[in-house]
Amino acid sequence: MSRIGPLSGFPEWLPSQRIVEQHVLDHLRTTFELYGFAPLETRAVEPLSQLLRKGDTSKEVYVLRRLHDDGADIDEDALGLHFDMTVPFARYVLEHAGKLQFPFRRYQIQKAWRGERPQEGRYREFLQADIDVVDRDTLPFHYDIEIPLIIGDALRALPLPPIRVQVNNRKLCQGFYQGLGIPDPEAALRAVDKSDKVPPAVVAELLITTAGATEAQAKACLALAEIATEDTSFVDAVRALGVSDPLLDEGLDELVRVMEAAREYQPGLLVADLKIARGLDYYTGTVYETRMIGYERVGSICSGGRYDNLATEGDVRYPGNGISLGVSRMLGVLFGAGALSASRSVPTCVLVALPSEESRVACDRIAATLRRRGIATEVSPSAAKFGRQIRYAERRGIPYVWFPGDGGHEVDGAGGGEVKDIRSGAQVPADASTWTPPDEDLRPRVIAAY
Amino acid sequence: MSRIGPLSGFPEWLPSQRIVEQHVLDHLRTTFELYGFAPLETRAVEPLSQLLRKGDTSKEVYVLRRLHDDGADIDEDALGLHFDMTVPFARYVLEHAGKLQFPFRRYQIQKAWRGERPQEGRYREFLQADIDVVDRDTLPFHYDIEIPLIIGDALRALPLPPIRVQVNNRKLCQGFYQGLGIPDPEAALRAVDKSDKVPPAVVAELLITTAGATEAQAKACLALAEIATEDTSFVDAVRALGVSDPLLDEGLDELVRVMEAAREYQPGLLVADLKIARGLDYYTGTVYETRMIGYERVGSICSGGRYDNLATEGDVRYPGNGISLGVSRMLGVLFGAGALSASRSVPTCVLVALPSEESRVACDRIAATLRRRGIATEVSPSAAKFGRQIRYAERRGIPYVWFPGDGGHEVDGAGGGEVKDIRSGAQVPADASTWTPPDEDLRPRVIAAY
Repeated sequence: MSRIGPLSGFPEWLPSQRIVEQHVLDHLRTTFELYGFAPLETRAVEPLSQLLRKGDTSKEVYVLRRLHDDGADIDEDALGLHFDMTVPFARYVLEHAGKLQFPFRRYQIQKAWRGERPQEGRYREFLQADIDVVDRDTLPFHYDIEIPLIIGDALRALPLPPIRVQVNNRKLCQGFYQGLGIPDPEAALRAVDKSDKVPPAVVAELLITTAGATEAQAKACLALAEIATEDTSFVDAVRALGVSDPLLDEGLDELVRVMEAAREYQPGLLVADLKIARGLDYYTGTVYETRMIGYERVGSICSGGRYDNLATEGDVRYPGNGISLGVSRMLGVLFGAGALSASRSVPTCVLVALPSEESRVACDRIAATLRRRGIATEVSPSAAKFGRQIRYAERRGIPYVWFPGDGGHEVDGAGGGEVKDIRSGAQVPADASTWTPPDEDLRPRVIAAY
Repeated sequence: MSRIGPLSGFPEWLPSQRIVEQHVLDHLRTTFELYGFAPLETRAVEPLSQLLRKGDTSKEVYVLRRLHDDGADIDEDALGLHFDMTVPFARYVLEHAGKLQFPFRRYQIQKAWRGERPQEGRYREFLQADIDVVDRDTLPFHYDIEIPLIIGDALRALPLPPIRVQVNNRKLCQGFYQGLGIPDPEAALRAVDKSDKVPPAVVAELLITTAGATEAQAKACLALAEIATEDTSFVDAVRALGVSDPLLDEGLDELVRVMEAAREYQPGLLVADLKIARGLDYYTGTVYETRMIGYERVGSICSGGRYDNLATEGDVRYPGNGISLGVSRMLGVLFGAGALSASRSVPTCVLVALPSEESRVACDRIAATLRRRGIATEVSPSAAKFGRQIRYAERRGIPYVWFPGDGGHEVDGAGGGEVKDIRSGAQVPADASTWTPPDEDLRPRVIAAY
């Protein structure tokens, strides 16, 4: 027998969990479309040269090879599975620039793959939901405010734990490091990015060894990273550290604008958190990470920011701002905690009981009438005893069983019968062309237990 | 600069085409759910041992390798991308049998990959929409009738060319070949499966060389493959060939039952076509292929059938019946023919014009009011001249531009203003809390030109 079983890092859901996931995806998509984001999908593969554009071979890319290829070498024309949506999107924009209207807003909900060591909330195959806005040459600043608010809007109507978006600005950090006189500000950014995973002493050590900081400079960097405020008081806290630099001023000003606008639209959603750095080196301004309250241990579930140079062709730049919601990470941890489930494991609202195999045509007609009216309906797979047919419905959570004709004993084919709510046992006469279930029974519901 | 451009066999759509694709997918999903099929997704990869279960290494599987793996050997623990949904589904059923309710109905809409030579309608990455019903031990015959009718029901409400489902039965062919005395009936089936691609003389030659048929037997096989009827008259045509075998009788009887029921439910959808064999060797009874009328050249867009032995574990069998709709093939050929498009390239119904950057907060409020009422709305990216803002809407096909306040000159923030239909030029006073666009403008429409 061939190997049957789970593969570490490749999560699969049961149908009732997939019902929850689809509910979440439908709502995300509806929200993104209400904001005018167009749908997009890109191919799953990119040439390795695209995936490793900045010469960064640290990414755990899955490389494809056809079974019958004999060559075992990986060259830069080899194809790899994409590890995010941002790199393929940048390529798509350059490739199709002549057919797109700028500023271009799109959402993209797709799987991505990374060959990393799996752990809680970190998978090898995972679903992401991205929104991005890109423009030609320049992108107005107001998108830096809009993007996290759209995510806040999308998630608050879902039965998920509350979230907190942590915002920072690369210019602020880089300007601070420059103003301090640190030799390699980019290395300093990468060191501070590890604040969530390692203790401050280790970050300090990294600042000294990789960024060339003195002990006093490292201490100032740590002091900056400790600043986190729900209002704009972070400005005074930064100023108190006594560093000045024009880029620092620009970063402070941008972060103030984001925080002030957010307070106007969605108070409490954003926090200015100056330790947020984002490891990816294409960010150039505002950056975001997002924690689910109560589930901070799995890290950020939604990250992104402003990138000014990701896509360039000759003299033309396509600056953008975007954010990526880790759907698998978010749902995986909630499923793992037993915190999210569906009210039933099938879409079916009504099971039409089958008195005899001869009455299947009449029962199919009742089902067709209900379906035309938007009511998901199955006909019983066999003419077993009614008790067994009711158990068929019960085991799946189907709320209603329809007994055709005269309580199921005579089938007239006219769509009449009796319908039983198998939870309460209540049974009433009904006609398929007029009977309607209560709204809350029509589709499976998502149930949250926090 | 890194390589930017299309990859042969990996199709990508423009946003307006993706809008069409999503419309099709939404409708398929809604239909499948109305019939009680539960949603499911499986991981994109399977161990090679699963993908090549019957020792068939002819499949052009993409094998994965991590970038930093040094071993270049492909062993059977290597992971490959799935080439259909059926093999992963069979594995999923065995793996999760204890948590599923049988008969188990599921739909699965996912990408699959094959490293084949690309041609019209044949891609290396493609989207499939599958439905299957599996049961433990035995699966009632009525599903053989239901499955193609569900596809007929799903497709007829979409703006696609009409379809014709060709049905045959493996038992009928195999019984006929046995009754004839052909030494290798399975090889005969594979030879006849090529009828669509090569002339009859070549099929005859294959029957002789690969299945051990005599010339007279080969002629009889070709005569059988020529029979195609819209009613049950195929029975007389087969009987006239003078072959008899118990398995042939069983196959004829099953095909009659499918054709009779289909005439009752959806007259004209099915044709009994005895050349349909389906290359895949897991089918054991009823088989289906589907042609789009006018686009027969791209081959079958929807294929499947009954399989009795795909998933077995010890003594337990999980027989099933399922069908797979080739969404990429179907849409790729229609997009290529310019036969399908969307009424606009964005979901946006209303663009709120921006009189000045200072009025952005007031304009955002108007947009939020419209969105809460389900109307997709963008605020203009900049306070350019109104003429330019109207062109922004025009280029995307956004039908309405909202001028806040007093025709756009004064913004009161109360949600009032004037709304212009930029197609007719008609402009009327409107309030964001009550104004509603005509139904046909609310979302992008799919436009078919056949």
